[in-house]
Amino acid sequence: MTKSILITGGARSGKSTFAEGVTLSLARPALYIATAEARDAEMTDRIARHQARRGADWTTLAEPLALSQVLKETDGGPPRLVDCLTLWLSNLMLAGHDLEAAVAGLTDLLPRLASPVVMVTNEVGWGIVPDNALARAFRDAAGIANQRVAEACDELWLCVAGQPLRIKP
Amino acid sequence: MTKSILITGGARSGKSTFAEGVTLSLARPALYIATAEARDAEMTDRIARHQARRGADWTTLAEPLALSQVLKETDGGPPRLVDCLTLWLSNLMLAGHDLEAAVAGLTDLLPRLASPVVMVTNEVGWGIVPDNALARAFRDAAGIANQRVAEACDELWLCVAGQPLRIKP
Amino acid sequence: MTKSILITGGARSGKSTFAEGVTLSLARPALYIATAEARDAEMTDRIARHQARRGADWTTLAEPLALSQVLKETDGGPPRLVDCLTLWLSNLMLAGHDLEAAVAGLTDLLPRLASPVVMVTNEVGWGIVPDNALARAFRDAAGIANQRVAEACDELWLCVAGQPLRIKP
Repeated sequence: MTKSILITGGARSGKSTFAEGVTLSLARPALYIATAEARDAEMTDRIARHQARRGADWTTLAEPLALSQVLKETDGGPPRLVDCLTLWLSNLMLAGHDLEAAVAGLTDLLPRLASPVVMVTNEVGWGIVPDNALARAFRDAAGIANQRVAEACDELWLCVAGQPLRIKP
Repeated sequence: MTKSILITGGARSGKSTFAEGVTLSLARPALYIATAEARDAEMTDRIARHQARRGADWTTLAEPLALSQVLKETDGGPPRLVDCLTLWLSNLMLAGHDLEAAVAGLTDLLPRLASPVVMVTNEVGWGIVPDNALARAFRDAAGIANQRVAEACDELWLCVAGQPLRIKP
Repeated sequence: MTKSILITGGARSGKSTFAEGVTLSLARPALYIATAEARDAEMTDRIARHQARRGADWTTLAEPLALSQVLKETDGGPPRLVDCLTLWLSNLMLAGHDLEAAVAGLTDLLPRLASPVVMVTNEVGWGIVPDNALARAFRDAAGIANQRVAEACDELWLCVAGQPLRIKP
């Protein structure tokens, strides 16, 4: 059985909508694990719009940092949707955590989980090299994390203009 | 019969050249609907280079804002190439129009047209989140517009280094 | 026999690792042609990490500018991996060379080579249009170069989160 699915794409490429459909096709209801923190008005607005779209098929749980722990604690229950890994990495970086260790913890855990996990991530490295050193470090970390998680997952999908393209297997 | 085709990709990925070939494969001559306005030297130069490449198979018509109206007025005639939706959105935003309403007008119209429409658009959301709030708002609007138009189209193609990849259907 | 292969993708998408595997699958040992110059600490660190990963199957040669000349001089020997064309273009631009002529020299040469060439390049045009005119000129040049080289190559691959997707043929 397919257990772990990674869905990537650019901003506003329909990743979350596709991921929600994939997760609910596995079982209803499902568990939505939000990594976003409502730190400003723009983010609060985006979170509210995402929640409004999801409706009654979902239980929502917010966890900005301890993602692997939440996946362990909720294993054996309904399928999980993690939205999204890029914000999780950003939260880890801002909190001074070791990103490589956190990603390794996640990729070690994925093949040992019993309930399915669908994860949304972002493509952030297809533009001109940023001037800003922190932005360069983040796009490197995000790219490497995407490679590691895709390697550990059973499926990888790329969303382009809302249309999913299967990349792996 | 295939009626509406969306062609996307990054900057300088060969979208326009591919779109021109697709349009002319439907019928010759064809109608080129340019959404660009020659507001500065860089843009004037780019428009001139695009026109020089097209040659005698094309009638050209420029419309920065009222795209749906032009598509209605020219329906029943030769196939249309719209190049490009991203500039159209940018023009609408600068002119203070309601982008969602304009995109909904286009997507409502597409399935009701008799003559084919090939549209070029751009991927703009695969880099680091821009510092600039207006740039963030634009990439959100462009991404959402691409989703809506791709959903309404019969075909979606992605150009990578000049090579087209069929995404839908 | 396949002679020239272009591998593209965003930053940290696994292009180099995939390209190394493709090159060594053709013959061992192989020749690694680095276009990078260690101009600062960040670049020195990146080069050192890439070299450490490659190991004993490779002979390394550094050439920031005269890529076509090196490909001619090393032809008839083991397969070559060029990593990467984007840095080569950046070096040419900084040195005031004619980029179009340099790319045309490469694309003219590729079909006449006897030993295989695998080339890594970067997607840099999938973000918001840069404010900076030099960045815009570079992303245009890089996009056009990718089109020209992909056209001249037997194969084009796109790496997404470390997973290769065949685009051509």
